[in-house]
Amino acid sequence: MLEDLKKKVLEANLDLVRHNLVILTWGNVSAIDRKSGFVVIKPSGVSYDEMCADDMVVVDLDGKVVEGHLRPSSDTPTHVSIYRHFPEVGGIVHTHSTYATAWAQAGIPIPNIGTTHSDHFYCDIPCTEEMSAEQIRDSYEASTGDVIADCFREIDPMHTPAVLVKHHGPFAWGTSAADALHNAVVLEEVARMAALSLSINPSISMNRNIVMKHYERKHGKNAYYGQVKTEKE
Amino acid sequence: MLEDLKKKVLEANLDLVRHNLVILTWGNVSAIDRKSGFVVIKPSGVSYDEMCADDMVVVDLDGKVVEGHLRPSSDTPTHVSIYRHFPEVGGIVHTHSTYATAWAQAGIPIPNIGTTHSDHFYCDIPCTEEMSAEQIRDSYEASTGDVIADCFREIDPMHTPAVLVKHHGPFAWGTSAADALHNAVVLEEVARMAALSLSINPSISMNRNIVMKHYERKHGKNAYYGQVKTEKE
Amino acid sequence: MLEDLKKKVLEANLDLVRHNLVILTWGNVSAIDRKSGFVVIKPSGVSYDEMCADDMVVVDLDGKVVEGHLRPSSDTPTHVSIYRHFPEVGGIVHTHSTYATAWAQAGIPIPNIGTTHSDHFYCDIPCTEEMSAEQIRDSYEASTGDVIADCFREIDPMHTPAVLVKHHGPFAWGTSAADALHNAVVLEEVARMAALSLSINPSISMNRNIVMKHYERKHGKNAYYGQVKTEKE
Amino acid sequence: MLEDLKKKVLEANLDLVRHNLVILTWGNVSAIDRKSGFVVIKPSGVSYDEMCADDMVVVDLDGKVVEGHLRPSSDTPTHVSIYRHFPEVGGIVHTHSTYATAWAQAGIPIPNIGTTHSDHFYCDIPCTEEMSAEQIRDSYEASTGDVIADCFREIDPMHTPAVLVKHHGPFAWGTSAADALHNAVVLEEVARMAALSLSINPSISMNRNIVMKHYERKHGKNAYYGQVKTEKE
Repeated sequence: MLEDLKKKVLEANLDLVRHNLVILTWGNVSAIDRKSGFVVIKPSGVSYDEMCADDMVVVDLDGKVVEGHLRPSSDTPTHVSIYRHFPEVGGIVHTHSTYATAWAQAGIPIPNIGTTHSDHFYCDIPCTEEMSAEQIRDSYEASTGDVIADCFREIDPMHTPAVLVKHHGPFAWGTSAADALHNAVVLEEVARMAALSLSINPSISMNRNIVMKHYERKHGKNAYYGQVKTEKE
Repeated sequence: MLEDLKKKVLEANLDLVRHNLVILTWGNVSAIDRKSGFVVIKPSGVSYDEMCADDMVVVDLDGKVVEGHLRPSSDTPTHVSIYRHFPEVGGIVHTHSTYATAWAQAGIPIPNIGTTHSDHFYCDIPCTEEMSAEQIRDSYEASTGDVIADCFREIDPMHTPAVLVKHHGPFAWGTSAADALHNAVVLEEVARMAALSLSINPSISMNRNIVMKHYERKHGKNAYYGQVKTEKE
Repeated sequence: MLEDLKKKVLEANLDLVRHNLVILTWGNVSAIDRKSGFVVIKPSGVSYDEMCADDMVVVDLDGKVVEGHLRPSSDTPTHVSIYRHFPEVGGIVHTHSTYATAWAQAGIPIPNIGTTHSDHFYCDIPCTEEMSAEQIRDSYEASTGDVIADCFREIDPMHTPAVLVKHHGPFAWGTSAADALHNAVVLEEVARMAALSLSINPSISMNRNIVMKHYERKHGKNAYYGQVKTEKE
Repeated sequence: MLEDLKKKVLEANLDLVRHNLVILTWGNVSAIDRKSGFVVIKPSGVSYDEMCADDMVVVDLDGKVVEGHLRPSSDTPTHVSIYRHFPEVGGIVHTHSTYATAWAQAGIPIPNIGTTHSDHFYCDIPCTEEMSAEQIRDSYEASTGDVIADCFREIDPMHTPAVLVKHHGPFAWGTSAADALHNAVVLEEVARMAALSLSINPSISMNRNIVMKHYERKHGKNAYYGQVKTEKE
């Protein structure tokens, strides 16, 4: 069942290690098959060294296990909530990568202060609001998805495909597991650069014209970054 | 004598290098066989490249050598003191890992300001009080064990299995050498994240409900992180 | 066409990865053949793993493609502008290396506060002025070359062969692609050291006599660093 | 001539790379044969990849080349000055390692604020005074040796075997090239830890009793760190 998607999800999970975004068993990647509405996700607390495609767990959009011999990631309710809220999302990455997590712990959005950021993310990376005591007690992971969605009422989640969950860490997404992973890699680097820039000069402001220019030249209608995409891609 | 435990202690010591927690000959891991009351510990000042299981030293709970052709770690009296104070401890790791040591030198507990921390440590990582001139002169390593124990009068050492020895560096422990090593790896990462978060936002406070939620979902009675443990584990 | 130069440009691009100056497809290196006035440059958005010498693109000094089956780097107009402004430049490197980019985002020149800097760069690494809204909209990459040139009205670009483009990142250059790469490596290291030094002591000033001494002993008429160059070099 | 010492000096130079203390051709190690008064030192500006024992240069205590087909390091006059000033020194390492250089650029001694420091260095790592314009112009490298010696009028250079040359970078030494290298590795780590500790808590002070205890337990008459040394060592 969804064997091809399982391979892609496994590969993206292993890439978390290759890109130094996780240590130990931390982090998880999922992808969705929009036709069936089924999500493939990493099992919980399994070592990256021993993981194979067959260990990936298939769940539905309520988070119930459809197939798999292992428990899905404990963050599964957050993943499915994001898929429900954002219909264009094809893959999701959650990590505790050092710098993005440091910003999430600081409870502050990562400001867009450079073209590295605006090449990939149109706005600041938002940080979620506090959850209520009831939300934390009764429906913590699902409510995490809700406070994430609240951040994107006025910004397009596909133009700024990442968020910081306050006190916790980052989620990034994209059109596929591989695209979400790419965004998670960039997120960690812009988180690091922003922290360094602010320690050098605490009063930076960004030039809004440059933000728009850089985002448009890579993602706009007349984009001229990269090679012309063939239909196959 | 205790050949199996020696292999495990050797392996955990070599893992210190693999996880970048030590340079040169720094750091040491021990484990206890609670039946005999004997502790297996790394020899002092020996290169990790050349170390074998047979080089591990067996001492009793007074720190006296029971078996071994090399001197035990100079921190042995601290290890045995921790084993005496905390009867549930099965393994201990001492390192000079960079960020945890920086906090120990700063003389400040590592605050629990994120879920990465509360997934593994229930409270702030405490920092020991100053020792008196007499303690330092007459019984330095054993007194180190005493000031460590003082930190855990009101907190459970198995829920917060690590401490910062002021001016010195971290000790972490667990149910086994491997578990202690795991906690030492996490400790270094949360030390790094906390330093970064505080440089981004010096006035952070943590949400106590999230601390409890994350600790409970991993370690509580109804824990739902990871796979169901079989009896063998 | 220019097969030898293509190999050198490919090699310098691959060195960006080896020296940890880039991640993903970021960064680009070019070199010029001053006889023909043709520039060889990396293609846009191609993976470093799959790149070969034949993928390098040949453009003229107006940035028009002369040969190549791929689009040139989107920063090509900036590269050719630098070649036009600075006739001694033989190679150019553009990266988003972490620390140099952090300074560019901070919008502050990297101060010459040590001999590591003055061994390679005579002055502070300048930071460009803001571009106007019109420059950004109508001729962004070419105007980037112009604001770079503005920084070198009173300083010799071959004695201080690097610049920070405000909000964006560094460009470094040299007599060849390999020399430009060497300067980009040094730039990242001095950017890192300067950030650390200023966090330790925010009120540093440099000794101008030492700047001159170090620059002269390596690059002056009576230079005595390194081996005597044979004519072949 | 001094073939054995050349091999040891080569090996210590290559260890600079293995321990991440240098990039490119930076850094140099020397050792002295006290019987002949001859010093073996790395050649200037040669790539570490291509260096062999035969490339090492032999100079006398005035810095004149006695044997060798390459120019000695441009820092040779500083090395021989240190050998002349400190008769117990057997080997010297000079690097631009990142954190120690950051402190040298900051112009501030590295404070002894932890046992990692006092295990190896009894005092703060001193920072040299400014040289005069004449010293810089006429005898820069030799005067560097003189301002280093000035720092050790009241402290023992074998108990605190390292120094920061203001605006420049660190020199470390020891009884041999390997011992000097060991001290350079520790120096970089304590420089890093001290910078981090001070960013966490700007008002740290050290416990003098612990400094003495740690230094003594490793280097004092009744040292109990490491294995009992045989005469061969």
